[in-house]
Amino acid sequence: MARVMAQGTFDILHPGHVHYLEASAAHGDELVVVIARDGRVQARKDLFMDEESRRRVVEALGCVDRAVLGSEGDLFDSVDELEPDVITLGYDQSFEPAELEADLAEAGFGDIEVVRIGPGPEDVVRSSSDVKARLAGALGEGAFHSVAGEDG
Amino acid sequence: MARVMAQGTFDILHPGHVHYLEASAAHGDELVVVIARDGRVQARKDLFMDEESRRRVVEALGCVDRAVLGSEGDLFDSVDELEPDVITLGYDQSFEPAELEADLAEAGFGDIEVVRIGPGPEDVVRSSSDVKARLAGALGEGAFHSVAGEDG
Repeated sequence: MARVMAQGTFDILHPGHVHYLEASAAHGDELVVVIARDGRVQARKDLFMDEESRRRVVEALGCVDRAVLGSEGDLFDSVDELEPDVITLGYDQSFEPAELEADLAEAGFGDIEVVRIGPGPEDVVRSSSDVKARLAGALGEGAFHSVAGEDG
Repeated sequence: MARVMAQGTFDILHPGHVHYLEASAAHGDELVVVIARDGRVQARKDLFMDEESRRRVVEALGCVDRAVLGSEGDLFDSVDELEPDVITLGYDQSFEPAELEADLAEAGFGDIEVVRIGPGPEDVVRSSSDVKARLAGALGEGAFHSVAGEDG
């Protein structure tokens, strides 16, 4: 049974997230989603919902078997705990699959495949930046600290 | 087969929504969710996502069989189209079950049961007002027009 691990913040759930997770689920038999901890989200001021709220919403998705809070340390703690066969990256997550595979191999996780998921449909909201840019536009400059920054 | 109809805006999906929809699903065999149209949401300026984006996210929930855009007219158009056996109301939606049942009977839908769903768990975000109040607090007064207003 192949276990897939996806990860992200998932603060305001949008169709881009849904696409990422549904496509991730298609890479294996079980999808576990790691939710970024409040303390690890760089632009914490921009969070609408606490980590447990974000976890519950993601776990309610039909394609998700389990959503768990991530580590306060780094991603490798979650990899060690969850033992995924596949790790998926969202289309706008910054690291590269080949780099992450190399880092994983160096950390002793040489069997994990890393897959980049493509962007979702264009006719709907597909990134948190889209959502925040829309709000920032309505509220004026400076409303958000990271409109073009993190996502997921 | 009993069809349940739930309805709301579902702009920023939070655990209160998940509770409302999962509890709604338990009242029948099939859950159809009616998504409020952009043009019908009173505080339209506060919407983060367009109606089709909101619809796709709700439809991705495990407890939801189908999510459809509502009518540009009133709720009874959707009732007429979807023929539900049960209609569920969120804990903070303003109309009363008995009133709605009376209005439905008057419109010729006398067989529909209306059920009020209770509030969800208290330890997580459970209303859109919570989410917007949190953001409004961070951004200053007046950032939102309807912090204490509509929800769902």
